[in-house]
Amino acid sequence: MSQELRIGIVGLGRLGKRHASNLAFRVPGASLVAAASPVEEERRWAERALPGVRIYSGLPDLLADQTVEAVWLVTPTSLHADQTIAVLEAGKHVFCEKPLALEVEDCDRVLDVARRHGGQLAMVGFMRRFDRAYAEAKRRIDAGELGQVFHIACRSEDPIDPDGFFVKFAPTSGGIFLDCCIHDIDLVQWMLDGAKPVGISATGTRIMYPALGECGDVDNGFATVTFESGAVATFHVSRTSHQGYEATMSLSGTKAGIDIGAGLTRVPTLSRSTGGRFLEGQTDFFQRFDEAFLLEANAFVEAVRSGKPSPLSLEDAREATDLACRLRDALKV
Amino acid sequence: MSQELRIGIVGLGRLGKRHASNLAFRVPGASLVAAASPVEEERRWAERALPGVRIYSGLPDLLADQTVEAVWLVTPTSLHADQTIAVLEAGKHVFCEKPLALEVEDCDRVLDVARRHGGQLAMVGFMRRFDRAYAEAKRRIDAGELGQVFHIACRSEDPIDPDGFFVKFAPTSGGIFLDCCIHDIDLVQWMLDGAKPVGISATGTRIMYPALGECGDVDNGFATVTFESGAVATFHVSRTSHQGYEATMSLSGTKAGIDIGAGLTRVPTLSRSTGGRFLEGQTDFFQRFDEAFLLEANAFVEAVRSGKPSPLSLEDAREATDLACRLRDALKV
Amino acid sequence: MSQELRIGIVGLGRLGKRHASNLAFRVPGASLVAAASPVEEERRWAERALPGVRIYSGLPDLLADQTVEAVWLVTPTSLHADQTIAVLEAGKHVFCEKPLALEVEDCDRVLDVARRHGGQLAMVGFMRRFDRAYAEAKRRIDAGELGQVFHIACRSEDPIDPDGFFVKFAPTSGGIFLDCCIHDIDLVQWMLDGAKPVGISATGTRIMYPALGECGDVDNGFATVTFESGAVATFHVSRTSHQGYEATMSLSGTKAGIDIGAGLTRVPTLSRSTGGRFLEGQTDFFQRFDEAFLLEANAFVEAVRSGKPSPLSLEDAREATDLACRLRDALKV
Amino acid sequence: MSQELRIGIVGLGRLGKRHASNLAFRVPGASLVAAASPVEEERRWAERALPGVRIYSGLPDLLADQTVEAVWLVTPTSLHADQTIAVLEAGKHVFCEKPLALEVEDCDRVLDVARRHGGQLAMVGFMRRFDRAYAEAKRRIDAGELGQVFHIACRSEDPIDPDGFFVKFAPTSGGIFLDCCIHDIDLVQWMLDGAKPVGISATGTRIMYPALGECGDVDNGFATVTFESGAVATFHVSRTSHQGYEATMSLSGTKAGIDIGAGLTRVPTLSRSTGGRFLEGQTDFFQRFDEAFLLEANAFVEAVRSGKPSPLSLEDAREATDLACRLRDALKV
Ligand SMILES: NC(=O)c1ccc[n+]([C@@H]2O[C@H](COP(=O)([O-])OP(=O)(O)OC[C@H]3O[C@@H](n4cnc5c(N)ncnc54)[C@H](O)[C@@H]3O)[C@@H](O)[C@H]2O)c1
Ligand SMILES: NC(=O)c1ccc[n+]([C@@H]2O[C@H](COP(=O)([O-])OP(=O)(O)OC[C@H]3O[C@@H](n4cnc5c(N)ncnc54)[C@H](O)[C@@H]3O)[C@@H](O)[C@H]2O)c1
Ligand SMILES: NC(=O)c1ccc[n+]([C@@H]2O[C@H](COP(=O)([O-])OP(=O)(O)OC[C@H]3O[C@@H](n4cnc5c(N)ncnc54)[C@H](O)[C@@H]3O)[C@@H](O)[C@H]2O)c1
Ligand SMILES: NC(=O)c1ccc[n+]([C@@H]2O[C@H](COP(=O)([O-])OP(=O)(O)OC[C@H]3O[C@@H](n4cnc5c(N)ncnc54)[C@H](O)[C@@H]3O)[C@@H](O)[C@H]2O)c1
Repeated sequence: MSQELRIGIVGLGRLGKRHASNLAFRVPGASLVAAASPVEEERRWAERALPGVRIYSGLPDLLADQTVEAVWLVTPTSLHADQTIAVLEAGKHVFCEKPLALEVEDCDRVLDVARRHGGQLAMVGFMRRFDRAYAEAKRRIDAGELGQVFHIACRSEDPIDPDGFFVKFAPTSGGIFLDCCIHDIDLVQWMLDGAKPVGISATGTRIMYPALGECGDVDNGFATVTFESGAVATFHVSRTSHQGYEATMSLSGTKAGIDIGAGLTRVPTLSRSTGGRFLEGQTDFFQRFDEAFLLEANAFVEAVRSGKPSPLSLEDAREATDLACRLRDALKV
Repeated sequence: MSQELRIGIVGLGRLGKRHASNLAFRVPGASLVAAASPVEEERRWAERALPGVRIYSGLPDLLADQTVEAVWLVTPTSLHADQTIAVLEAGKHVFCEKPLALEVEDCDRVLDVARRHGGQLAMVGFMRRFDRAYAEAKRRIDAGELGQVFHIACRSEDPIDPDGFFVKFAPTSGGIFLDCCIHDIDLVQWMLDGAKPVGISATGTRIMYPALGECGDVDNGFATVTFESGAVATFHVSRTSHQGYEATMSLSGTKAGIDIGAGLTRVPTLSRSTGGRFLEGQTDFFQRFDEAFLLEANAFVEAVRSGKPSPLSLEDAREATDLACRLRDALKV
Repeated sequence: MSQELRIGIVGLGRLGKRHASNLAFRVPGASLVAAASPVEEERRWAERALPGVRIYSGLPDLLADQTVEAVWLVTPTSLHADQTIAVLEAGKHVFCEKPLALEVEDCDRVLDVARRHGGQLAMVGFMRRFDRAYAEAKRRIDAGELGQVFHIACRSEDPIDPDGFFVKFAPTSGGIFLDCCIHDIDLVQWMLDGAKPVGISATGTRIMYPALGECGDVDNGFATVTFESGAVATFHVSRTSHQGYEATMSLSGTKAGIDIGAGLTRVPTLSRSTGGRFLEGQTDFFQRFDEAFLLEANAFVEAVRSGKPSPLSLEDAREATDLACRLRDALKV
Repeated sequence: MSQELRIGIVGLGRLGKRHASNLAFRVPGASLVAAASPVEEERRWAERALPGVRIYSGLPDLLADQTVEAVWLVTPTSLHADQTIAVLEAGKHVFCEKPLALEVEDCDRVLDVARRHGGQLAMVGFMRRFDRAYAEAKRRIDAGELGQVFHIACRSEDPIDPDGFFVKFAPTSGGIFLDCCIHDIDLVQWMLDGAKPVGISATGTRIMYPALGECGDVDNGFATVTFESGAVATFHVSRTSHQGYEATMSLSGTKAGIDIGAGLTRVPTLSRSTGGRFLEGQTDFFQRFDEAFLLEANAFVEAVRSGKPSPLSLEDAREATDLACRLRDALKV
């Protein structure tokens, strides 16, 4: 086996810590050699949890580290475009968390730079594509087993946040369609092979977090998109689930259909108690997509090492941002 | 117990035969005394299957039968309004299958006449309200157990019709929203206590039955309705289910949610065969709502006999037609 | 249609009231004309609930009623054999609740009498055979779809009885195998076409009702029976279910298998509440087998009227009692 | 972090390859440095798949490798006892696949040696204990949430093996109770905290593999064990599942119950096809317990490095062999 790919991570927040631990211990062929965060507490975490890894306080220092071959960006979305450009211009491969940017123009700026750095890999983190269930659906579509897909119903629900902590991030996260629904948007475009949207409608509620109104966001978003082919996608994205985290998709084709993710529980157990059974819901996307994050990282490492094209291209990420923006703009509540 | 209610039925087609058998044998307090159909074969069926019942060839003759106290209309939808009026003017109670009419104006004509016949009962056949599952959801909402309901997701799917037989009825049935989706429309309005719709969007597909295009109908309809309260209802109504008949509803409130009808099979068995388990789908609405049709008939009979108000008023039926028409009109495919 | 079958019921306890209401209102072709109970309160219930029915205080008076053509016995098990004999000797058809008797000798006494009254129908009430799910399994076995059935796993659970009311009936009910498990015993023998048991073992617990020890009974019974064909049946019968009433059966054949009754809830709804979903269990056998009781009564009435053989013969009932007694005797706890 | 634990694996068959890949790439803190197999093809596999690992043709050579600190035995069951002893006597830590031995006497020989090597860790591979679902059940029992556990129903099914390949291993694998059921046996003893069995019965079938009769084995085993506490465990272990691999356990306590592993599918998708939905079964124990094998290895490595006691002691493994032997001996078919 050739040498391990030397990776530096930037951003050690909620998700960054997970990526860092994966890259350090669970991704064959990867070697986490550097980690950067402007937050001292996060750097102290890295010292303890990531033995032997060099710690920096920001992207510039990490880019200057000549041993780093690839950079993993898990920073706030508003920084993604500029940081991806900086990594590419530093001559390194780049993985960037979703979404690539909150406006199409920013995506296009990245695409321009990337075109001039064709030898470097750039990948965006829509990890659900690597989940076994979504991947199986895609495989079956490509094999023709579903016939022509004419409807995809998507639902992604986050559990209620009792503190409403997320509300203060709403203005910079891009709102529910760009921050959450974008996973399903990307998946739909993937399943439909880049079909062109021709009709769009969206609405929403602010039933539990009225403060979202200040930035035009909602706590439940509903959207319908029709594609040139006649296919219809419906989206329900929510921040107010009682039952826990839930991501489901139901695809219908002319020959068959497939339901993804229904009925999952935190662990495969059911409690029998007075009067019935309780199915404990999933806790969060970490739990549901733990393996997908790993497979995503494997795919990146494998693509760099074998010189294959990006497993999830900037072009695709641009289309997802484009459609998400149009849903955000269609939302008038 | 007082005397049995003497009922005459009009229309002995697919659904009429079921209603007739129920009223003849399975509804305590009811006595089916007359049945009318313009079709000779249907009248012959009645002679065999409904012993002792007087057979007529149309509504006028049946109305002239003085022993008939209540009339059960299971005729084509286009006749509902005029026939309901005729029954009321003949001084008899009336049960009319859904929908009351295909235009609001026709509903209003019926309402006008009904107001002048206040002593007679008039009821429209949205039988799902009497199904134990939907009724339980309504009961729990009324008891405050769900908090404020902010989203209702409705899905009603009919199995693929290999002959496309239904296509030729599309022009007179009113299209998918008035013919099928109207059940969910009525249920949503019931669950939300008659909330006022303020925003509407609709789209659809003609993936398997392109001929529906001739009358502007679709084989899958998708609609989103926002209500004054902020609540959102989403509808998916389909004629192209692979897995069989399916009617589900998922309600979300600020305190809790409830899912109705998910995972039902034709009989409570699972087949284990090579590589997995097969869950046989439901066959049709007869099978799913057999008991609901009975409970609906019980409610009518019980209301007449005890002088209670209509279990499902013409006013409610008018609102359902109104919203269904607006969805039909919003559909531009 | 010929005249309705005139039925008299004896025993208006927990189950008798249900049978009486069914026969009075829900069974086409049946007419409940008489009802008998030694308990005044039950007779008063009959006066209110069964209009037009003649009320007696015991079986002898009811047998003397010349209009009664068939008798429905829903009396304590210890009376079944003698009362069935009395009905047969009075020249009437007889339906007897399960089990036919608590000892094989008593079954044989009934069989002797029945042989001399071949023109009268005698049927025992194993209503589960008429449930759509068990009936479908039997149909599929007979059609060869399962191949050779080699294992049947049976589980029947009653909810915990907080008052332990049932404990005082244990001595006369025959214990858990004769009172409860007998349904599964009958079903296994039916599914296996009367296979001969060759090996038996049984055990049990008294975890919640230690007082059952006084009469040698248990609150959970476990038994394994091997049949001459090599097939194995395993039984778990319980009085201590937390989750509600539950009756399941899982059949395995050389070609396929079938699971019956798994995952049923009281109504087809799921509650979404904090942290997950709740599946409300079934309440009791009335709820689970409501339709089966009706179909059972239909089968009796239909057999009498058409002169067909008994839908569930005394011979079969004798075999069930025989095997149940052997399980009871094998139980040494 | 201290130095990684240097591990040598012996046996690179079906399961050995999996363990080897895990130890090489997926277990933090572990370093696979050596691998041994008498089979040349397996050694060639190791050269390709385990870069940098020293390859030996047998245990003695591997034991002579001074860099090896711990040995992972994935060899035929008949070798387990002697090889475990050899490893201990060579002064190394040892992990041995289940079962420890096919006779209690052999377990005792190992225990004797182990007592004299108290500073070395010895662990047996009942990996299900590390599965999140079984672990959660144990945690809840220990927390008192189930009350007193009075019944555990275990079912472990392997898919039908069309070639009957396994039949020729039956004589040396110890038969169905020692080879397969032993997992559930260990789990029951763990859940019941080492409860003492007082009553035992067992039976079985040879419905698809009559050739098993030659060594007294069966293709479906059924057993019931009662414990001193009054608790009852029932076992069904099968080699003839149509629907795929399946391992379920249902525990009942006086306060609550818990069901483990029901309804799992290969991937979390459902296929909708003509007439219903298909739930694809699990393929094999690799798929179901992939994570458990990893967590098991983690636990071993972590225990060695931190000087903690064995996560799964030889004493426990001896009890499992003891009870499994008693079930094997009780089997008379
Ligand atoms: N794929 C998924 O399902 C998924 C889930 C959650 C988050 N995300 C994405 O991951 C990203 C991070 O989300 P999070 O929840 O971890 O956020 P977070 O706020 O918890 O973490 C952000 C991190 O970025 C660091 N950071 C901030 N400014 C920086 C700068 N100028 N230079 C370098 N580092 C800087 C912070 O110190 C912190 O470590 C977001 O883009 C989000 O959309 C994706
Ligand atoms: N509640 C439900 O779920 C449900 C389901 C199916 C149908 N329906 C409604 O029931 C009605 C009948 O549907 P169907 O499927 O039975 O249709 P159908 O075409 O099978 O039957 C219509 C019946 O009306 C009779 N008829 C026609 N013209 C008549 C006239 N001038 N006078 C008297 N009788 C006349 C026909 O002979 C026939 O018996 C429709 O309004 C439909 O919307 C409701
Ligand atoms: N099929 C089933 O699933 C099922 C379920 C419950 C009960 N059962 C059977 O039904 C029978 C009755 O059970 P139950 O729970 O209703 O019992 P119960 O004690 O509630 O009712 C017994 C009835 O018999 C009457 N009775 C008592 N002595 C009598 C006599 N000498 N003559 C006439 N009537 C007499 C009582 O007044 C009472 O009405 C039992 O044999 C039981 O095994 C069957
Ligand atoms: N934990 C589980 O769920 C589980 C599952 C499968 C197997 N197992 C256990 O794992 C063990 C191996 O099973 P398998 O299915 O991989 O068997 P296998 O026959 O496929 O592999 C056995 C391996 O042992 C090697 N071997 C044979 N003789 C040897 C010797 N004298 N010295 C060194 N190596 C020798 C063989 O070359 C082969 O690599 C068995 O004890 C079995 O019970 C456990």
